[in-house]
Amino acid sequence: MMRIVFDLGGSVIMPKEGANAKKIKEYADVFKKIKDEGHEIAIVVGGGKTAREYISIARELKANNSFCDEIGIMATRMNAMILISALGDYSIKKVPTSFEEAELILSLGKIPVMGGTHPGHTTDAVSASLAEFINADLLVIGTNVDGVYNKDPNKYKDAKKFDKISAKQLVDLALSFSLEAGSSSVIDLLAAKIIERAKLKVVVVKGTPEELLNVSKGIINGTIIEG
Amino acid sequence: MMRIVFDLGGSVIMPKEGANAKKIKEYADVFKKIKDEGHEIAIVVGGGKTAREYISIARELKANNSFCDEIGIMATRMNAMILISALGDYSIKKVPTSFEEAELILSLGKIPVMGGTHPGHTTDAVSASLAEFINADLLVIGTNVDGVYNKDPNKYKDAKKFDKISAKQLVDLALSFSLEAGSSSVIDLLAAKIIERAKLKVVVVKGTPEELLNVSKGIINGTIIEG
Amino acid sequence: MMRIVFDLGGSVIMPKEGANAKKIKEYADVFKKIKDEGHEIAIVVGGGKTAREYISIARELKANNSFCDEIGIMATRMNAMILISALGDYSIKKVPTSFEEAELILSLGKIPVMGGTHPGHTTDAVSASLAEFINADLLVIGTNVDGVYNKDPNKYKDAKKFDKISAKQLVDLALSFSLEAGSSSVIDLLAAKIIERAKLKVVVVKGTPEELLNVSKGIINGTIIEG
Amino acid sequence: MMRIVFDLGGSVIMPKEGANAKKIKEYADVFKKIKDEGHEIAIVVGGGKTAREYISIARELKANNSFCDEIGIMATRMNAMILISALGDYSIKKVPTSFEEAELILSLGKIPVMGGTHPGHTTDAVSASLAEFINADLLVIGTNVDGVYNKDPNKYKDAKKFDKISAKQLVDLALSFSLEAGSSSVIDLLAAKIIERAKLKVVVVKGTPEELLNVSKGIINGTIIEG
Amino acid sequence: MMRIVFDLGGSVIMPKEGANAKKIKEYADVFKKIKDEGHEIAIVVGGGKTAREYISIARELKANNSFCDEIGIMATRMNAMILISALGDYSIKKVPTSFEEAELILSLGKIPVMGGTHPGHTTDAVSASLAEFINADLLVIGTNVDGVYNKDPNKYKDAKKFDKISAKQLVDLALSFSLEAGSSSVIDLLAAKIIERAKLKVVVVKGTPEELLNVSKGIINGTIIEG
Amino acid sequence: MMRIVFDLGGSVIMPKEGANAKKIKEYADVFKKIKDEGHEIAIVVGGGKTAREYISIARELKANNSFCDEIGIMATRMNAMILISALGDYSIKKVPTSFEEAELILSLGKIPVMGGTHPGHTTDAVSASLAEFINADLLVIGTNVDGVYNKDPNKYKDAKKFDKISAKQLVDLALSFSLEAGSSSVIDLLAAKIIERAKLKVVVVKGTPEELLNVSKGIINGTIIEG
Repeated sequence: MMRIVFDLGGSVIMPKEGANAKKIKEYADVFKKIKDEGHEIAIVVGGGKTAREYISIARELKANNSFCDEIGIMATRMNAMILISALGDYSIKKVPTSFEEAELILSLGKIPVMGGTHPGHTTDAVSASLAEFINADLLVIGTNVDGVYNKDPNKYKDAKKFDKISAKQLVDLALSFSLEAGSSSVIDLLAAKIIERAKLKVVVVKGTPEELLNVSKGIINGTIIEG
Repeated sequence: MMRIVFDLGGSVIMPKEGANAKKIKEYADVFKKIKDEGHEIAIVVGGGKTAREYISIARELKANNSFCDEIGIMATRMNAMILISALGDYSIKKVPTSFEEAELILSLGKIPVMGGTHPGHTTDAVSASLAEFINADLLVIGTNVDGVYNKDPNKYKDAKKFDKISAKQLVDLALSFSLEAGSSSVIDLLAAKIIERAKLKVVVVKGTPEELLNVSKGIINGTIIEG
Repeated sequence: MMRIVFDLGGSVIMPKEGANAKKIKEYADVFKKIKDEGHEIAIVVGGGKTAREYISIARELKANNSFCDEIGIMATRMNAMILISALGDYSIKKVPTSFEEAELILSLGKIPVMGGTHPGHTTDAVSASLAEFINADLLVIGTNVDGVYNKDPNKYKDAKKFDKISAKQLVDLALSFSLEAGSSSVIDLLAAKIIERAKLKVVVVKGTPEELLNVSKGIINGTIIEG
Repeated sequence: MMRIVFDLGGSVIMPKEGANAKKIKEYADVFKKIKDEGHEIAIVVGGGKTAREYISIARELKANNSFCDEIGIMATRMNAMILISALGDYSIKKVPTSFEEAELILSLGKIPVMGGTHPGHTTDAVSASLAEFINADLLVIGTNVDGVYNKDPNKYKDAKKFDKISAKQLVDLALSFSLEAGSSSVIDLLAAKIIERAKLKVVVVKGTPEELLNVSKGIINGTIIEG
Repeated sequence: MMRIVFDLGGSVIMPKEGANAKKIKEYADVFKKIKDEGHEIAIVVGGGKTAREYISIARELKANNSFCDEIGIMATRMNAMILISALGDYSIKKVPTSFEEAELILSLGKIPVMGGTHPGHTTDAVSASLAEFINADLLVIGTNVDGVYNKDPNKYKDAKKFDKISAKQLVDLALSFSLEAGSSSVIDLLAAKIIERAKLKVVVVKGTPEELLNVSKGIINGTIIEG
Repeated sequence: MMRIVFDLGGSVIMPKEGANAKKIKEYADVFKKIKDEGHEIAIVVGGGKTAREYISIARELKANNSFCDEIGIMATRMNAMILISALGDYSIKKVPTSFEEAELILSLGKIPVMGGTHPGHTTDAVSASLAEFINADLLVIGTNVDGVYNKDPNKYKDAKKFDKISAKQLVDLALSFSLEAGSSSVIDLLAAKIIERAKLKVVVVKGTPEELLNVSKGIINGTIIEG
């Protein structure tokens, strides 16, 4: 029985073609199943399409990045509300805006579903901080690739996936990616650093309902990061 | 010099094709101009496309109407943030969530931009309540038709626009519309009733930047409602 | 075992002659009994005498209706605090100001007791929204008549009580009452519309402790409204 | 030009016979006049009749004193809302619940009107703390006697009014009163101690509109307390 | 099985030489043990060294006492966070700022740990109010002397400790101490008065982990105060 | 006339030997002077000694880093309160906890003084985000060295100070420092990245009152970073 934080990237929950009730329901069903097996879980969702569209307009209107971040945070919370809708009685119809609130909802035996919290933090960073705050046993990062690669797999055919890497290596990777124009690491630098300092156990997998369920059963088709 | 509340319907600020930075900027420029002429203004914006899309997914996922309303309120606030982006120093980078907060921002000499406030209230009702709360001299309802008609102008070719009607008549109209399946009044019943009880002076015009500016100059190409 | 929302009208909990500790205690004892039988319950109380007195003074002092509503909301919350006092450990010494907070208190196994929430909403409308928000199985409206009549029973001797009506009929009744000067429907139009859209199961009974207890046992001496 | 805190006892603003719009208007007119002369003012109002009635019921229902205090605080805030209604644009339609909020409203050039803040604090103590917090030049305590006496003037015919006393003497008086059953000092012990530690300049006068206006003109028909 | 409030003076938790992780852990272990025996507990901690240092600087900078109190309250909350750190899963990582919040945390089966709440209130007064608010069976005041004495034991060698005193006597003692320059009562006057009005059962003991544990077992090496 | 954010490192405002009223007053006097010259200013202060001491205890007690950050944030807010004490009427006695609040205080013509805001953010990152959020013309980072060096000047005698560097270079420096054990950059990586994305104009100077005043006069004895 573990305390698990799931981090669902925006591209996973709110892809280019928009959210889809059927897909969201599949995620919710998986989370209910994992909860029913006795695990405590908390979920952080990203912004995706809606966030991107609003931020792009705000930027054209000369909004600064901090305020754009605030707009994006609202979009992540709307995504959280969608997932909460599908979770029914397994959750509570309130998106926590702080880690304290998330912990309180956990204490009620419910599943907290959060979005962003603060300008300058991606939801990856939020999920790492939340995992640290609630002393989670495991952070599961569900993304649109199936693990951590040594190079950007969308750009390099010979990119190799790691089965296991250390948090230190993860930070180095995020650094090197951040130095190469046009590449983006599966985990941003701030999130990587929080993972490192918190000595969190993390797995990165493709963010499908099936793979998330697999992780809860100990089957990890992705990359394991160890503190 | 008046204290004016502008109510921008969702279909105006966030139409079917999504928001558009250029259009938002035109609205913001009009509001700045009106403010510069010495008027105090407050703005309420609706939800439109984003609200509709999220609510439709939530409903499929069996969310109840109250929670769907909460989701819609988030969308209206994102729209408000977009408009705030364009208003720059004329506003403050915080969407008020209560009328008290809106009044405080007005007292600072800034333009409050709100979205929805509470399940069961359309943003039309919010704008009427806000106008009442801050004792506005005028409520301007900008919508996708150019005034109040005796029948739904989208359904009946012989629908006639009122130049002037009383608040009592407005309520009756909203009632009769609400009894006819498939028709919708330009102003919903709750909003009409608040307008009636508050004895607000209201104008309903096509919600284009030009017509909003016209109203501030006393040119009203729409319907005047008088308490 | 049901999740039930009780709506206690202001005239019931805070009648013309003011509140009465003995009466409040009887209500509290009934609610404790219903809770002990295994039902989950939430309560919304109205404003009554205190609300009316303060609002009348505020109105003389030229306060607008929205602010008068805010004053009335404070009075409903004081009534809620009185009932909370009598509920002791069955409740929590905090009046929720949102449906989210009410749901959280329910999750703690306690009885949330709310008053009003927002200008423009009667506590009838609040109770209907709350019932919708928490997916209640039943909304019990305790009022000063013993059900829904086809005409105002205080004005017409031949008024007839309905045993059962549809939500659609309830809305029509509220409409017709609202059109006749001096008559007031047992349920206001906004509340009726929320009941209709939420497809809530509702019963309207005389708001005595005995009748509330009867309802929990399935004995309904009033009117049943069905979505 | 001074920064003045006015403390209006519950028995002054909400006497046995209940509040009275005409009386409240007279108070508001005086406060507007004093503001127009260039003074900055803040007001704290007590609970009076409504507070007493609700607390008495709550106590019968076995509510503890702390919760009774919370109920009383709600009543003071309703009284504040009544006075705010009469102050119109001189105030803001929000009762501050902390000294920080009151200071912010002052900074806006408006008159903050507060009630109680915390269990265990009378509104006399609140007004003394507020005066200290905002570094007021003067605290005016308007009560139902016309100053500070050496004995309870309602019990002893030979009670003598002080023209001037020190804060130290005020504390001693409050102490001695608190030791004699059935007597109550014009200022409670906690308030007296805050006055002493803050070295506030205080005047105690009969809380009529006329006397409050007199104080602002330097005419003091009561008792002066000096740090 | 009792509901117990523990009041840990600032000099106990944050003595002159600063806090000490080992000592805090001992306290936490005792609280866990008492909780494990089935008691419900809540804790209030004082400010001590950090509070004193910051307040002394603020005072030099001409901050008024109310604001100095606010600074002190922050220090008490930092001390609460330290204790929360040591309590782990027995508590929740959020310092309640109101009694309502503390009650809610208790309802979750966790230990609320508070600091101060309001200018003008010592943490002794807070703990007495909290004990009253949550209807505690016992308030344990842990201080740096081992009970209540008839004179200041630090000044008078012949000071005698009471085994038992009434709340009325406690108030009288606090009064007489407050009149003698340089002496300070183990319990301040406001706290004593709240104890009196609440008819709380209170024990005053030396605030060591051992003595706190002893109290939970019914062994009281200090003074018992009875309503 | 500029809008300037000042970032005062913890080691500056709360050095190893603790804060010092005289020193704080000197800072406050400089800020008042700069404000009097017509600049709008906002200040962010770090944690320093108190933060370090509390965090070290919390860590020994097994608190996780996120919660340690929360404790540190409290310490930064206490430091902010000290500076607010010295600023008197130039500020407001409330430490903003969000950028929105800080902007509101600026709109009142007052100086907002903030501490930290969120786990995972240093106060350097906060000051950069705040500068971005309020569209500041200049961010002044006052630290314990007199500019940005190519190597850690405390470790390498031949370290050279930059007169000017680009934001891109700053990020690279922060990166390279973060890779070398035991060295710490004058600006952490997250802050550097926010500076880069916001295209902020930044100066890094020794954080003495004199140098801060110099900056406001255009005399910069440190490093200029340009977007």
